[in-house]
Amino acid sequence: MRKARAGIGIDVGGTYTKVVVVGPTGRLLRSSQVETAPRMGPKAFVRRLAEMIRALGPGDVRVAAAGVGLAGDVDSWRGALRFTPNLRRFTGFDFKAALEGALGVHVEVDNDANMAAWGGYVVELGRKPAHALCVTLGTGIGGGLILGGRLHRGATGTAGEIGHLCVMPGGEKCHCGLRGCLEAYAGSYGILRTVRRLLSGPGVRRSLLRRMEPDPARLDTRLVALAARKGDPVARAAWAVAGRALGLGIANAVYLLNPEAVLLVGGVSAVGPLLLQPIRDVLRDQPFKRSFGIVRVSVARTPHLGALGAALRGLESAA
Amino acid sequence: MRKARAGIGIDVGGTYTKVVVVGPTGRLLRSSQVETAPRMGPKAFVRRLAEMIRALGPGDVRVAAAGVGLAGDVDSWRGALRFTPNLRRFTGFDFKAALEGALGVHVEVDNDANMAAWGGYVVELGRKPAHALCVTLGTGIGGGLILGGRLHRGATGTAGEIGHLCVMPGGEKCHCGLRGCLEAYAGSYGILRTVRRLLSGPGVRRSLLRRMEPDPARLDTRLVALAARKGDPVARAAWAVAGRALGLGIANAVYLLNPEAVLLVGGVSAVGPLLLQPIRDVLRDQPFKRSFGIVRVSVARTPHLGALGAALRGLESAA
Repeated sequence: MRKARAGIGIDVGGTYTKVVVVGPTGRLLRSSQVETAPRMGPKAFVRRLAEMIRALGPGDVRVAAAGVGLAGDVDSWRGALRFTPNLRRFTGFDFKAALEGALGVHVEVDNDANMAAWGGYVVELGRKPAHALCVTLGTGIGGGLILGGRLHRGATGTAGEIGHLCVMPGGEKCHCGLRGCLEAYAGSYGILRTVRRLLSGPGVRRSLLRRMEPDPARLDTRLVALAARKGDPVARAAWAVAGRALGLGIANAVYLLNPEAVLLVGGVSAVGPLLLQPIRDVLRDQPFKRSFGIVRVSVARTPHLGALGAALRGLESAA
Repeated sequence: MRKARAGIGIDVGGTYTKVVVVGPTGRLLRSSQVETAPRMGPKAFVRRLAEMIRALGPGDVRVAAAGVGLAGDVDSWRGALRFTPNLRRFTGFDFKAALEGALGVHVEVDNDANMAAWGGYVVELGRKPAHALCVTLGTGIGGGLILGGRLHRGATGTAGEIGHLCVMPGGEKCHCGLRGCLEAYAGSYGILRTVRRLLSGPGVRRSLLRRMEPDPARLDTRLVALAARKGDPVARAAWAVAGRALGLGIANAVYLLNPEAVLLVGGVSAVGPLLLQPIRDVLRDQPFKRSFGIVRVSVARTPHLGALGAALRGLESAA
């Protein structure tokens, strides 16, 4: 019997690297995770990845290609990492050549947000819309654009950076150094800053959040989501601020791109409706009823979309 | 001898309609202008256009196609005007069918900003960049996107509406009903509002602008441009406000689209450097050096880009 075709997807994060084996339609066959440990250097990292992929034992499938998503500025044409703040030792490394050598298959390399966007487009949206925007929510905010059914990378491969759209000139400080970026309000560090500021304000002594975690420095967005679902007003207010900023950023993207779908991808999906409502409120208030009337905003439910999308990109570019 | 191939370009504005005859590379062969007079209704308007085109006498060329740019929400697939605030009697009219009947050639219909963007892309940028943003400056602000060498219309044909990107939440009132849109600062009505506010402030009794036109209600952007070139501080400040807002809007578009070129098209091109400097300042301040480093911002010099682009779109879609 002929073995089924499959792709390897690798999502390299600052802390963990996710590896999946995926069928051509996006079905997850196997998955694993390893610490990225960037101090080891990129060559040792690639050796470890190759061992891990062998240990995953894709013996019953035929691995036809692989894809790698990297957090940072990626030269997807050459397959190398140009720059990343969290994986400095990996800078300049030619992942494509190294992994093609180690795995013996075609390897596609791209920014992790582009990979997640493609995964979301195929698996969550079923490739139905012609034009879609995926927003990846995490510590930072990234994004990827599908235009005319294809990934739009732009001139240098950095298209889709919705996290740095200015939603409030002179506003909150962003990790990029500027003020007022969407990320400064709706990235997890922005959300936690909002929470801490609200908690230090007057009249919030009896916040559920404070009971859940008395040390504000140890709060995380998971706790803020839990508290918000339980009705805590501070937590709810913080999600409303994040959602409104996301709404403004997404509205700007809709004016420019006129997509049918916006997909939110990432860790905060558990808080779904608390983020979606303020986003939809902002979009509903826009006077351009035709373009805003057709946009569907949804939260991705599939886990590991970054790794999954990487595998699918690999399979498609090898086909 | 075989006649040279040419296209008719028609740019329908709220007040005037421009008609040009253009060669396949964008060379202007003839041009004329007529009052739009929307009260006559669309059928009489099309009859007038057809007469005017005959009067233009393109007898020495072979008219192969025509294109029409309409100010408003255009269904470019069907070739009809969906909605426009300034030409209400034209709403719903099927320009494509009517003009194809009257002229006997293929007719392409699109939003006027898309037509101007295409004209700018071909004539000013020589089709060299893969990805370009054109911003049309007038009473309002529109735009068009060329992505991968093709016009990106979006799902409903309204992509490129950069004028309604929010550059200052809660800011100046826009004609669309919302506050803080780019157009509210850099559309000509926004620029004149800034000028009037500055003129009514303290310490500007001896403004050159006031000497040029004592009645603030009769100011126009041409006078503001002239005064600015002569060094008037009020006029210069107004262009700086407009340029900074344009810079913020364009920066947002660069984050999303990562284009090589941004082309400013429209009436305010005479004020070029006074607008370009603050735009370039905003772009230079962005921390993403790779994508912002490659963007070239320029001001279009070719007149009638809307009509010219319409002719070229017609020729290409008929080819």
